[in-house]
Amino acid sequence: MTVPQRAPGGFPVVGIVGAGQLARMCAGPAAELGLTLSVLAEASDASAALVIPSAPVGAHSDVEAVLAFARECDVVTFDHEQVPADVLAALAQAGVAMHPTPEALVFAQDKLAMRKRLTALAIPCPRWVSARTPADVDAFGEDVGWPVVAKTPRGGYDGKGVRVVGSSAELADWLKRAAAEDSPLLLEEKVPFTRELAVLLARSPSGQAAAWPVVETVQTDSICTEVIAPAADLDPDLAARVTEAGLRIAGELGVTGVLAVELFELPGGEFVVNELAMRPHNSGHWSMDGAVTGQFEQHLRAVLDLPLGSPRPRHRWTVMGNILGGEHHDLFPAYRHVMARDPEIKAHLYGKGVRPGRKIGHVNVSGEDLADLRERARHAADYIEGVILE
Amino acid sequence: MTVPQRAPGGFPVVGIVGAGQLARMCAGPAAELGLTLSVLAEASDASAALVIPSAPVGAHSDVEAVLAFARECDVVTFDHEQVPADVLAALAQAGVAMHPTPEALVFAQDKLAMRKRLTALAIPCPRWVSARTPADVDAFGEDVGWPVVAKTPRGGYDGKGVRVVGSSAELADWLKRAAAEDSPLLLEEKVPFTRELAVLLARSPSGQAAAWPVVETVQTDSICTEVIAPAADLDPDLAARVTEAGLRIAGELGVTGVLAVELFELPGGEFVVNELAMRPHNSGHWSMDGAVTGQFEQHLRAVLDLPLGSPRPRHRWTVMGNILGGEHHDLFPAYRHVMARDPEIKAHLYGKGVRPGRKIGHVNVSGEDLADLRERARHAADYIEGVILE
Repeated sequence: MTVPQRAPGGFPVVGIVGAGQLARMCAGPAAELGLTLSVLAEASDASAALVIPSAPVGAHSDVEAVLAFARECDVVTFDHEQVPADVLAALAQAGVAMHPTPEALVFAQDKLAMRKRLTALAIPCPRWVSARTPADVDAFGEDVGWPVVAKTPRGGYDGKGVRVVGSSAELADWLKRAAAEDSPLLLEEKVPFTRELAVLLARSPSGQAAAWPVVETVQTDSICTEVIAPAADLDPDLAARVTEAGLRIAGELGVTGVLAVELFELPGGEFVVNELAMRPHNSGHWSMDGAVTGQFEQHLRAVLDLPLGSPRPRHRWTVMGNILGGEHHDLFPAYRHVMARDPEIKAHLYGKGVRPGRKIGHVNVSGEDLADLRERARHAADYIEGVILE
Repeated sequence: MTVPQRAPGGFPVVGIVGAGQLARMCAGPAAELGLTLSVLAEASDASAALVIPSAPVGAHSDVEAVLAFARECDVVTFDHEQVPADVLAALAQAGVAMHPTPEALVFAQDKLAMRKRLTALAIPCPRWVSARTPADVDAFGEDVGWPVVAKTPRGGYDGKGVRVVGSSAELADWLKRAAAEDSPLLLEEKVPFTRELAVLLARSPSGQAAAWPVVETVQTDSICTEVIAPAADLDPDLAARVTEAGLRIAGELGVTGVLAVELFELPGGEFVVNELAMRPHNSGHWSMDGAVTGQFEQHLRAVLDLPLGSPRPRHRWTVMGNILGGEHHDLFPAYRHVMARDPEIKAHLYGKGVRPGRKIGHVNVSGEDLADLRERARHAADYIEGVILE
């Protein structure tokens, strides 16, 4: 096990389980703050392992590997929500400081637990049930109207965790697997949303919380492709209620670190919560360039129980465009065009190999004219992806 | 020799000779752009070596070490100007792409060469001569008036390269050493400046150049302690002439990468050039948070001959306050106070041990009220240093 090299001056070591792009994007802020990062990497060429000196290779599901890793860190946090309960329990047993805690993290790991808890808190959710049988599914569909949204509460089957179905027959395979595992499915009504919003905030163990402005997230084929910060033409009252819901969720669930609450905006000024993530989140990438405190710096401050930084936007608008893997593998040469066309584009690449649909980077651009910014972000992301339309 | 691990996608490796804070502050921007950095580190715990995975230890004066290091990089640049001419020549001989080139760098390494060249270009300089004898010194003092400023053209004697003297007798020791080394001293008139300014710009091998706004630098005991960006109440015509001089110096000297031109503002709207630095510079640290493109990102773009980013300020004012080592070694606990008092302070620590007067970090803060920003930057820097006045 590599021992992370501490900076003099009492600066701590923050361990991150998982070395994806979220861990990678902590590297810049950690260096600025004088902190040392250590990442438990899935592979020696993982995204974060390319830029962080202390990156021992080990599986997040390997109790011994995670324990050995954690022993060299002052606090442990997570690149993703896949760390199994037995590993979290072993860390807790060993007295490891973890943020978020297992007690909070379960609500990001288990969608049924999340729905039960948010409903108990009277946070607006889509109508939902847990379902074990075709009869459960049919009854719910009759009640809320077809189609309905079926979700595996934890992870997914064959890489998929969400399915929109028009009858219980279309869920026969999932119901069989759910029965075999004695683990019910989550069914939700398919809400007639007008757009998707997200509120991102950070909360520290001391209980301080700070929320960034509510953003609009644009999905293409179920993948986030664009974020507009703040959400345009958002009713200030709705923005306030959404932010209040986010802060309440963070407080009631005892979240520490960054929390992302994904929401659907409904006609009539209402909203429902869609998903929770307890880590820096795609909906907050705009903040790296667009806010006084970016989400990666804020996550580090929160897990260290430092006072939080200002989430104030630096500009009227910031637009984030995701770069997804396509056919084109040779990304670097695109910089020549993208940077020459738009000297204000901020490119963020993750050091990941190209696979179709994989998130490999994003761009941010800030300014006054939203339509112009959206065009520029889209053009730059497309061009790096290899989609050249002009 | 460690081989730096490249990211897929054609992203290059940028090598930096020297692992001080300037190399360290390239780490965040490099990770964002998907680039790989490699630093030739003076020690395994050097500032940049703490945050960059590829940091082989070797001396910048060791030809073989530098050549072996450079072989694994696509382009080589420098953390400081101390690389000796024979090492630079060996790199050039080996076909290593270097920015700045040795032909340009000499004007940042040798103050006499700089004065000769700038004078030939009719760039305003203090009156100056090269001096070998007491008679040379006395003649110059009689001509321009005492005291005069004496400088060792390269490096310094006993760690000091500048002395203000009221007679040739006060330079007897330096003149003896200069004679022994057959290397004259540089004498300059002591100009009656009203304040110190700096213009920072970047120039690419293709010849594109971009300048940040002219800043004011505040020195305390000959160490830069504060930078105000842009310089307050600066005559726009003077700002334009200063910027034009910077661009002309960069072009005529063939500078590639970031160039800092330090200047004295004189009564009557004139200026003279004080010093040149061909690398990211303390006078540009404000740009990390205060400009669309920070100097470290820009330096990487320039040495890779990528199109340059916009140097546009994000805010009306940004104030940078240097953190200098004092008596206080335990820096991290100060964050609790500094961050709680001012959620907009951006702290940058260098991972360096505290030694009195050593630059160990800086803070940036941006906004509308310059007096307020100066107070906040000074308070935060003082508090981290351990100077608690309230």
